[in-house]
Amino acid sequence: MNRRELLIHAAVVTACAHLAPLRAADKTAGAAKTGGDRPTALTRQQHWVAMAEVLKPSLSEVSYSALNVVAPRQAPEHLLGVAMKQQYDVGELTNKSFKTGDSFIVDFGEHYTGYLTFSLGWQGISCDAPVRLRLIFGEVVTDVTQPLYPYNGWISASWLPDEILNVDFLPQQVRIERRHAFRFVKTDIVSTSTNFCVTFGQLQVRAVSSAGQDRLAPARYDSDLLKNIDRVSIRTLHECMQTVFEDGPKRDRRLWVGDLRLQAMVNYVSFNNTALVRRCLYLFAGLQREDGYITACVYEQPEPRRGEVVLIDYAALFGSIVRDYLRASRDTATAQELWPVAKQQLALALKNVNAQGLFVAPEKDYVFIDWNPGSDQSAALKGLEKQTAIQGLLIYSCQEGIELAKSLGRNAEVAHLEETVERMKQAARGLFDEKQGVFVSGEQRQISWASQAWMALADVLPQPQMAQALTRVMSLPQAIRPLTPYLYHHMVDALIHCGLSQEARTLVEEYWGAMVKTGTNTFWEAFDPKKPMSSPYGSKQIDSYCHAWSCTPSYFIRHGFVRR
Amino acid sequence: MNRRELLIHAAVVTACAHLAPLRAADKTAGAAKTGGDRPTALTRQQHWVAMAEVLKPSLSEVSYSALNVVAPRQAPEHLLGVAMKQQYDVGELTNKSFKTGDSFIVDFGEHYTGYLTFSLGWQGISCDAPVRLRLIFGEVVTDVTQPLYPYNGWISASWLPDEILNVDFLPQQVRIERRHAFRFVKTDIVSTSTNFCVTFGQLQVRAVSSAGQDRLAPARYDSDLLKNIDRVSIRTLHECMQTVFEDGPKRDRRLWVGDLRLQAMVNYVSFNNTALVRRCLYLFAGLQREDGYITACVYEQPEPRRGEVVLIDYAALFGSIVRDYLRASRDTATAQELWPVAKQQLALALKNVNAQGLFVAPEKDYVFIDWNPGSDQSAALKGLEKQTAIQGLLIYSCQEGIELAKSLGRNAEVAHLEETVERMKQAARGLFDEKQGVFVSGEQRQISWASQAWMALADVLPQPQMAQALTRVMSLPQAIRPLTPYLYHHMVDALIHCGLSQEARTLVEEYWGAMVKTGTNTFWEAFDPKKPMSSPYGSKQIDSYCHAWSCTPSYFIRHGFVRR
Repeated sequence: MNRRELLIHAAVVTACAHLAPLRAADKTAGAAKTGGDRPTALTRQQHWVAMAEVLKPSLSEVSYSALNVVAPRQAPEHLLGVAMKQQYDVGELTNKSFKTGDSFIVDFGEHYTGYLTFSLGWQGISCDAPVRLRLIFGEVVTDVTQPLYPYNGWISASWLPDEILNVDFLPQQVRIERRHAFRFVKTDIVSTSTNFCVTFGQLQVRAVSSAGQDRLAPARYDSDLLKNIDRVSIRTLHECMQTVFEDGPKRDRRLWVGDLRLQAMVNYVSFNNTALVRRCLYLFAGLQREDGYITACVYEQPEPRRGEVVLIDYAALFGSIVRDYLRASRDTATAQELWPVAKQQLALALKNVNAQGLFVAPEKDYVFIDWNPGSDQSAALKGLEKQTAIQGLLIYSCQEGIELAKSLGRNAEVAHLEETVERMKQAARGLFDEKQGVFVSGEQRQISWASQAWMALADVLPQPQMAQALTRVMSLPQAIRPLTPYLYHHMVDALIHCGLSQEARTLVEEYWGAMVKTGTNTFWEAFDPKKPMSSPYGSKQIDSYCHAWSCTPSYFIRHGFVRR
Repeated sequence: MNRRELLIHAAVVTACAHLAPLRAADKTAGAAKTGGDRPTALTRQQHWVAMAEVLKPSLSEVSYSALNVVAPRQAPEHLLGVAMKQQYDVGELTNKSFKTGDSFIVDFGEHYTGYLTFSLGWQGISCDAPVRLRLIFGEVVTDVTQPLYPYNGWISASWLPDEILNVDFLPQQVRIERRHAFRFVKTDIVSTSTNFCVTFGQLQVRAVSSAGQDRLAPARYDSDLLKNIDRVSIRTLHECMQTVFEDGPKRDRRLWVGDLRLQAMVNYVSFNNTALVRRCLYLFAGLQREDGYITACVYEQPEPRRGEVVLIDYAALFGSIVRDYLRASRDTATAQELWPVAKQQLALALKNVNAQGLFVAPEKDYVFIDWNPGSDQSAALKGLEKQTAIQGLLIYSCQEGIELAKSLGRNAEVAHLEETVERMKQAARGLFDEKQGVFVSGEQRQISWASQAWMALADVLPQPQMAQALTRVMSLPQAIRPLTPYLYHHMVDALIHCGLSQEARTLVEEYWGAMVKTGTNTFWEAFDPKKPMSSPYGSKQIDSYCHAWSCTPSYFIRHGFVRR
């Protein structure tokens, strides 16, 4: 251990004495057996959760004022069909007063994650009653221009970003206790009394983030569009970097494996906060399910707790995150510590591979790959035919695991994996439709971008042939396209991997560029250019418009769209 | 000054240095002229506001647990048509879990004014979203069994007692920040997610009051009904005693002259907290309008501020409150200090009396006397013909003023008042309809309880004749009856004043008794036995069911229904 490690170790011992019982970790049967040379009072997993606690960052807090009072205007030229026009400078707001039924929207000019504060005063004969306000927080224009209710989505309505606020006595400095993610705030004056109007002043957000400074921004960009895409990508990541890498500061505000992997990649070429990645890796490792799988997400509050679901593709990619972390941080000790977890994820995932080298979906756990257009929850996990994509993803993950092991001098532990990879590649080639020039998936022989992307990243066919399949699938109207930036990322990554840099760049410019052109400050959780108002949740009101997995253009831009 | 006064005086000087600018008092032109021997930096009015601040009581805080989970049942035998039946002991609540759309009502068994707290937990697969709850606080059964919306009353909807609550992370100890007045709490689970249900425990109220102990309760009562009426009266007063005598802890939570007068009377025969009366008298005196009138109400928060309206009857009765205070406290110094204010109220009110000794309503200020059945705001101040009642009330107030002056050795200052009283009584006798045997009011010669009550209290006719008029009006179906306990109080007082003790007792037993029989814990702001669901505000949802001016049966019961 070096000096820093010793300090952390001492802090962990102290923290453990004070931590609330780590219930999730306590429940993990058998974890104690692998304690090794850790303090005997702690299982290995408890130690990792404690390490994560020690690594929890302090958040920077900076206050920003609202800029303008704005109003929506029809904007057929915009993807969302609506845009904001400025009404007046927010400084003029203090001269206005609002009665029951009035409403106004302020624009902060940037996406912030934090706590809204404002001063609430009154004008009139007498402030003789409480004031009731409804606040709606919007990341994008449509959040505050389209009604939140009725809400027909399938995920919890509790995520809808509105608050009803009662203030008994005026004037009052109001502080919204809950953290919100927003650029726009719509305020409805639900009720005053006939004797007074309310006034507003000092609308501010106390914005929080653990990102810090983007010290690795390029000196120049090839185009203004790429510059803007990079800016929006980095803002997206900035907003998601809190005490963990959240998937989205609006919703779920939670650490997911898939999001973490992409966030960490962009983080290394921007904020380069490796300690936060390390914290998140420890959280997953410390909260493994009884069978050893890491769960697709974990919860931080009120205390660390494992997620309810395993996504096999997410678990398999854990080693890839550790490998990226090692390359960025050169922190071999942590990588050594986490290697057994990475190895275990691959071993568990490969249990679903049959003797012929083909992945067979188990009953219990799921495969994600992407949300699906128009899906509901169950269809989302079945609608896109994922057989071929997961086959490619597992091969890719094994290859990443093998590389990680070699970096750590653990070649012997992965000799068998190389054999498995060969068998799986062989099986994978059987999924290639020579006539159509693309991989197909499932009994219906479904053609999708997902299948080609993961097979390319897995190097299943020679590079020129894979490049052809990628080009081909993009030209097929019937091919299932990605819905989310998460899968678009893998398509772009595959294009670059196969030498199609220009195509990769064009895809970034078209897909992420379309979002940028709406004036958004952050990239969205889901975006179907053909159906901009569709949502994987059946209701656009619940979508997150600042979503971690959509921040990856900066990774490609800052690597010059060339293979790493 | 005695030692206590010296201490208070010193505290006032200190407090003044720290008080926020007393804006309302500052605006009172000319107040500085009357500073006299007070510290030169303070006007007389500022001094009184500062004195009130020094006298602000600490509130006792006691926690009480909810008792039962209850459900409404139709109860045609009840005035409100509905009653509660017990579902299960609140202790069992911790074993239940609630999903989106569920709802339950807890019963605390008593009316409390304070802050609700509870623990909110979860059960299920995973708590993967915030929880949204709607809480409705009910003083009586109908508050939580009838919908709050749509609300069509004419006073502010902000008073409706519901809260929308969002809790991000479970388990959580929840504390409702706003003070509510309630016996029942209905909880609607607006949304969880499909992955979890919520659980509730430790439902408690941190109840606040400045009342203290009722040390003057009678050892015995003439009947169980009177015992119960006394209990409910005292509870009503207890709940309204906060940092001022509030009119109602639900709404308006504010110090009104008319309510204070009745509360103080009951206070002297129960809690006997004379310091709180003194504080309230100083607030009115310290916040006089520019023309010298005290306003009908004053506001405490965020800093003392005068009300928007003068009610001439309320202002005229100020001296009566001072007189009662002097008799209860023997605090001659304060009575001497406030006498000029009392004298000024009478002088201002009498400006509206013409040469013939008749009150003529001015354009600017109002007369209250009572709310009116089915009234809207403007009709409430005009519907009941108030000419005769205010005539009697002014005579009564002048007589109270004269008695106060005599107690203070200031006979010379009121010699002219005695002459005025005689002229007004002479004019009042002209309003008596010999044929019908009652006083009439206005051009339509309206017959009301209000007219008889105030004429009786004013001793306008010999007692036997007044007793006849009171008996007569109660037998006339066309006579306008009171709507509120405030005017019923004056009717009961008038009956006792005219020697009709048994009739007074019967009226208390019938009117307040009808409320008691619904199982209420406190007396209501407005109650028309013939139309129990009518409201002076056009919507029963906004009514206060614990209202100061309805607490006076204890005054009569504890004085044995005999003239004081």
